Amino acid sequence: MDEFSLIRRYFAGLTDSASGVRLGIGDDAAILIPPPGHELLMTSDTLVAGRHFPLDTVAHDIGWKALAVNLSDLAAMGAKPLWCLLALTLPSSDEDWLAGFADGLRELSEQHGIALVGGDTTRGPLSITITAVGSAPAGTALRREGAKAGDVVCVTGTLGDAALALSGRAPALQQRLDRPTPRIDAGLALRGIATAAIDLSDGLAGDLGHVLAASGMGAELDAETLPMSEAFALATESAERLTLQAAGGDDYELCVCLPSSRLREARAAVEATGTTLTAIGVISAEPGLRWTRGGLPIDGPQHGYRHFDDGSAAHG
Amino acid sequence: MDEFSLIRRYFAGLTDSASGVRLGIGDDAAILIPPPGHELLMTSDTLVAGRHFPLDTVAHDIGWKALAVNLSDLAAMGAKPLWCLLALTLPSSDEDWLAGFADGLRELSEQHGIALVGGDTTRGPLSITITAVGSAPAGTALRREGAKAGDVVCVTGTLGDAALALSGRAPALQQRLDRPTPRIDAGLALRGIATAAIDLSDGLAGDLGHVLAASGMGAELDAETLPMSEAFALATESAERLTLQAAGGDDYELCVCLPSSRLREARAAVEATGTTLTAIGVISAEPGLRWTRGGLPIDGPQHGYRHFDDGSAAHG
Repeated sequence: MDEFSLIRRYFAGLTDSASGVRLGIGDDAAILIPPPGHELLMTSDTLVAGRHFPLDTVAHDIGWKALAVNLSDLAAMGAKPLWCLLALTLPSSDEDWLAGFADGLRELSEQHGIALVGGDTTRGPLSITITAVGSAPAGTALRREGAKAGDVVCVTGTLGDAALALSGRAPALQQRLDRPTPRIDAGLALRGIATAAIDLSDGLAGDLGHVLAASGMGAELDAETLPMSEAFALATESAERLTLQAAGGDDYELCVCLPSSRLREARAAVEATGTTLTAIGVISAEPGLRWTRGGLPIDGPQHGYRHFDDGSAAHG
Repeated sequence: MDEFSLIRRYFAGLTDSASGVRLGIGDDAAILIPPPGHELLMTSDTLVAGRHFPLDTVAHDIGWKALAVNLSDLAAMGAKPLWCLLALTLPSSDEDWLAGFADGLRELSEQHGIALVGGDTTRGPLSITITAVGSAPAGTALRREGAKAGDVVCVTGTLGDAALALSGRAPALQQRLDRPTPRIDAGLALRGIATAAIDLSDGLAGDLGHVLAASGMGAELDAETLPMSEAFALATESAERLTLQAAGGDDYELCVCLPSSRLREARAAVEATGTTLTAIGVISAEPGLRWTRGGLPIDGPQHGYRHFDDGSAAHG
């Protein structure tokens, strides 16, 4: 079966004509019409089997997660997702696996009206690279730079669920690891409000560190304010929470900075998208990341998570 | 070293600001300004070690080829290349390898003024996925569909060199296999003239077959007219040439259809870009691919090349 037959067979529905698609899969390249007056946001992330997901992860969840990690990058830019390209390297043409993988990819892409417009299928060790393209009105995309002294640091949703699930101690949270929710609508809601944004793929401490470096700022974070799910609270002791919540990866929540005068407005806008926005600290002009608990300085995580234990480069 | 440090260190010069790049590598996604009035062309191709290139290929040539196969797809659409994203999966952080790979990628990208605007680095079995983005004025991109009965079938350059090099019999042609030349300028020159186009990645017979299927047409090709290099002519017997030239992969030449009334104009336009355009046959309304030699029907290749001997899906 050639690649287009394979893609047409398993990915039907994903390749339907969507906004701005003049020509989708089936030629040497897709022909796409960018929205006038918008800038494009583009990102590529790779998932390698055994590295970015456990080898026993079901195909459906791999399909979902391969797209979700890319959409999370678009969410952090405040972009509306438009199109994606899939480069799929598979050890063999396992039809059950392909059907499950396509289902997971389709389920998430339908939630956001994204079209699969191109890609490649090759044989080799299991690995998936998705390139996602989104758009935002010119000049409105969120960046890592731009945080100002006095800005409030906020995060969407809850932190630490995926890291706890990865430890195997909270089966109820497994979906937070296997099927993360890219915060696309929250990112859109925060456009025009947030001064800086990043998605939390490698843990709050490391990812916020990228914002601080890009903005030339520091931050004070209050360990007691980090939002946690009920399942997380039940399954953890308080002494271990900070590490899981601030140095554990795969949250795929957004971390944003915004003027304190706009916190109420931002919280309402994010809550309208079905998640929460929690203030966890403040940006300061003094470089570095400092932690407090009950107003007193404590030692806390300074670095992010590295996937599994191999020291591989984190994905952006 | 995190991925941005790695990319900044080895890919400096590739990430310089280029046309339409508002924000390149270093954030969650690149911010890109599409050329007004243009459509975008996007393609992703993966090279897997041992599958799409021999394991002993030097890093420089892998970097070149990973970009070249993507640019060849853009060439077949008549697109001007703008930007690319690199997803690089590496077994280890081998600095010599990275420096060589980056040099090869840089050399080709500089020839076409392309900026590396994003990507991902992960650890795993060696594999490279590049997503290339180009543009063309709205409505002018070349497609596989559109060939008309009576059109002349033409190819750029010479055929069979890479297939012969792969067999190990023509060291002088090794660069044709390892460092193919994407026919970007020829593709641009053929915009507004060609009725259909494809790049020859998997062999003339199979790739032209895609054009015929998309256009609902057939073709008669004259085996004696297939253009060959001097090195190819010297190293081969006439009896083996047709298979190498029409069923061998990795030529990365363009195959285009165009009205016979415009053949002279097309040839001059392509020659001005530094390569040749050779008429090899004619499109007919009768489905199927038919071969002649000296005006008499002969058996000839009907299908393309499959990478190495694994039956993997060909790349587009």
